Amino acid sequence: MTHSLHTVKLTIEYDGTDFVGWQIQENGRSVQAEIERALDQILRERHSVVGSGRTDAGVHARGQVAHCRVSAAVDLRELNHSLNSVLPDDIAITSIDEVPETFHARYSAIERRYKYFISTRRSPLLRRYDWWVKYSLDFDLMNRASEIIRGEHDFTSFCRTKSEVNHHRCTITDAGWTKDENSYVFDIAADRFLHGMVRTLVGTMVDVGRGFISSDEILRILDERDRRAARMAAPPQGLFLWEVKY
Amino acid sequence: MTHSLHTVKLTIEYDGTDFVGWQIQENGRSVQAEIERALDQILRERHSVVGSGRTDAGVHARGQVAHCRVSAAVDLRELNHSLNSVLPDDIAITSIDEVPETFHARYSAIERRYKYFISTRRSPLLRRYDWWVKYSLDFDLMNRASEIIRGEHDFTSFCRTKSEVNHHRCTITDAGWTKDENSYVFDIAADRFLHGMVRTLVGTMVDVGRGFISSDEILRILDERDRRAARMAAPPQGLFLWEVKY
Repeated sequence: MTHSLHTVKLTIEYDGTDFVGWQIQENGRSVQAEIERALDQILRERHSVVGSGRTDAGVHARGQVAHCRVSAAVDLRELNHSLNSVLPDDIAITSIDEVPETFHARYSAIERRYKYFISTRRSPLLRRYDWWVKYSLDFDLMNRASEIIRGEHDFTSFCRTKSEVNHHRCTITDAGWTKDENSYVFDIAADRFLHGMVRTLVGTMVDVGRGFISSDEILRILDERDRRAARMAAPPQGLFLWEVKY
Repeated sequence: MTHSLHTVKLTIEYDGTDFVGWQIQENGRSVQAEIERALDQILRERHSVVGSGRTDAGVHARGQVAHCRVSAAVDLRELNHSLNSVLPDDIAITSIDEVPETFHARYSAIERRYKYFISTRRSPLLRRYDWWVKYSLDFDLMNRASEIIRGEHDFTSFCRTKSEVNHHRCTITDAGWTKDENSYVFDIAADRFLHGMVRTLVGTMVDVGRGFISSDEILRILDERDRRAARMAAPPQGLFLWEVKY
């Protein structure tokens, strides 16, 4: 009865602190498994959800997107409500929309946006959601570095080595730092991201901001196409998958 | 050697989630005990810290203030740094300043400000720091209610019954709601607050916003001078001690 199934798009917010990540893994809580379990419980049959991409352990999402196929008889507003009532309180479905059958959360995405939050002071109220950097940072140098990565580049140097993708080219459509009194925020959008890429970019740009490497070094690091050329990755709790565009 | 002691003012931020409250209690973690322990550990003698007021279990502080007396030989910048390095990560000392000997965190305070955060949607990323209200609220009615409480009133009806104070009059210098797409924030300043007062005010005003009681009912509730006249208290996690003025 395939003709009676509709494809739906789920928009999902989660606090990544207590997850092994988006993707189902043998050990530990994953966001994907929790959502599949909730769907199965409510609709009383097996469902698979496909995400726009993985997020690592500890990484949050304000706007993760996934798709799945559900019976056309299901009222989506009601399903959204029911899912939220059975999901644990660190996951919420913020919307469910019917989409064309050809919609694929991963392959139909045209742009993904991440934000990374840095706090320049020790903050108990923000510690689950930002990286506390104890050093003074040069904002202009960090922004110069972020300008360099805009456009299309091979990001092999910013990708975790065990990657399954067949090429490492990404087109950065937006990248820049903003700051206020006690924080720095990095905002980046691209057609695709490689595993660990945003955190490695942030870690490297913070080393630019500390004066350890010059902003032009970013170009050299890109050219090396070797993860060892880049600096330490920033910790996961500052990173948010912000939005996925289709 | 009393002459060699200086009075210092500590400004403190904490995430109240895992505390029984500000005040030392026989069972459970208190913010006050953690700070005293940290002071004792660093300065190698017993210290007492006096807070501007208590906060209940689960209530947060962006700007709690306390005072204590430390040897005049202590470098305050260094003390601030050392305290933060031994305190648990849900407490931070945001500043330490020398103040006149007559300064008292509780009695010298002229104004206290609290904020209460309400979310109108289920948010995993905000759930530790706000109250998720599932009902639609009438913003104008809630603001009309908040206008009524401005000025000097007897707040017996909004005070937990087992209170040790000798009168219940408070002067509200500022009270109002603001809102954006998914949240309501209540901002209130007064010379003093009674135990449970902000949460009971918020709970009652939310019932005004839901249309359960009229905004003018607030006047009648104040007049009754009986806690049973007011509505349910809002939960603790939305409440922040925002600032104390001297």
